Amino acid sequence: MAEPVVAILGLGLVGGSLARDLHALGHRVLAHDRDAATLTAAVRQGAVRVALDPDLSGIDEADIVVLAVPVGTAPGLLRGVAARSGTSLVTDVGSTKRSVVAAAEAAGLERRFVGAHPLAGDHRSGWGASRAGLFRGATVFLCPASGVAPDALRRAEALWRSVGAHPRVMDAAEHDRRMAWVSHLPQAAASALALAIARSGLPTEALGAGGRDTTRLAASSPDVWTDILLDNADDSGAALAALEAAVADIRRALERRDREGLAAALEEARRWKEAD
Amino acid sequence: MAEPVVAILGLGLVGGSLARDLHALGHRVLAHDRDAATLTAAVRQGAVRVALDPDLSGIDEADIVVLAVPVGTAPGLLRGVAARSGTSLVTDVGSTKRSVVAAAEAAGLERRFVGAHPLAGDHRSGWGASRAGLFRGATVFLCPASGVAPDALRRAEALWRSVGAHPRVMDAAEHDRRMAWVSHLPQAAASALALAIARSGLPTEALGAGGRDTTRLAASSPDVWTDILLDNADDSGAALAALEAAVADIRRALERRDREGLAAALEEARRWKEAD
Repeated sequence: MAEPVVAILGLGLVGGSLARDLHALGHRVLAHDRDAATLTAAVRQGAVRVALDPDLSGIDEADIVVLAVPVGTAPGLLRGVAARSGTSLVTDVGSTKRSVVAAAEAAGLERRFVGAHPLAGDHRSGWGASRAGLFRGATVFLCPASGVAPDALRRAEALWRSVGAHPRVMDAAEHDRRMAWVSHLPQAAASALALAIARSGLPTEALGAGGRDTTRLAASSPDVWTDILLDNADDSGAALAALEAAVADIRRALERRDREGLAAALEEARRWKEAD
Repeated sequence: MAEPVVAILGLGLVGGSLARDLHALGHRVLAHDRDAATLTAAVRQGAVRVALDPDLSGIDEADIVVLAVPVGTAPGLLRGVAARSGTSLVTDVGSTKRSVVAAAEAAGLERRFVGAHPLAGDHRSGWGASRAGLFRGATVFLCPASGVAPDALRRAEALWRSVGAHPRVMDAAEHDRRMAWVSHLPQAAASALALAIARSGLPTEALGAGGRDTTRLAASSPDVWTDILLDNADDSGAALAALEAAVADIRRALERRDREGLAAALEEARRWKEAD
């Protein structure tokens, strides 16, 4: 049986890497990117067979449509995809899932949409950062629309397994709550730490290895993360408030010269981290 | 000319690694560690030639004495060293420098003490984590006592250059202020982030690669860091207050759904980090 034809909209780090892997597995990959140079490069390098026009004409050839655009852009794009494509699976790769699943349901894709979030991004972005094997060994959360067809979910699982990822089905709201703590909070914490040091007047190169790691995520794309944080503002805001409280706990222990309190806080953090 | 005899007090990550490198360079290394098994292992593995007794008898054979003990322990030890050793250089490896330099001056070592802080630690600790080449390419801050003899400073610079580090002389107070921002703050931030996530009930393994990096330092030794933070409590407390303010800036932008304000904060952090 021939591999399904896959249309990928957006050839950044995640979309580009998926195009490379699916092409290598024998899929015919159609793609669009709003950056013409990226699209030309992807076709020239062979990962993309057909460059789609902005109006997405020709997308009805695809068996699977993957939206790999920023979180804020996906909902608007879903309506166009629903109108132009009768494919059995529409999916995405965004870091938040509640709003895109709701948008898919509103666009009439409730039987065909399975949101996906591969835990495989890093602080780099764009086609230039994309690479084969990005998803190998990564968890990918799958958040199906309410009335999803069992076949659509099976296809989504098969797609991600084929590139080496481990699918895990999760309710979209639960996914977003979880990500607020383990993904959006570390991202915002790294940016806040970089801001605080920047405002002290010290340069980045004054950091040692530990400080470089702790601020690494601050190099991430501000556009991408502004979208993600705003899309999950309530949960991320609660997580940030909890971080403020934890920083204040440590600061107050220091101000009181409270050796036991300080050691207990660092030990509680270490125990959690070492359970790795 | 024979290499100087070096006495190292404390065979943890830093003291142990220094012993390995200096032994390989042909120095005769005397050492003590309060953990008898560590001291035995270091002698058996050849890095240490002579195990010193707790009373440090025999230390007067050394041309250079290196204190490689926790920040809170060094001042007390300095008095014993001053009494027992006429060596021309006494140095240390602690992460804070103001209190140890003051203690050295008070102990009558003002001509012979050059505090040192190699930026080469990581979240591991103990003899088991020590290794050859730890200091290669690392900056080492040297903070001399007030009345230091030029020869003592030259010897300290030569010692660290011989193991591949780059010496940089700095006033102890300036060093501690700087470290509050680029070392102590990232450490405390990683612990606070780990605390916040731990209190949400999510396990460490829920983190992606970014979250793992951002919390890496939380695995550091609570004892070592309690000492360091308390020893630099005023500067570190000020840095923590600045971090709280930066986290609050991001949280409030989220609460107001202030896209521009949020993007501007993330972009300010990214610009600083990317100046790397």
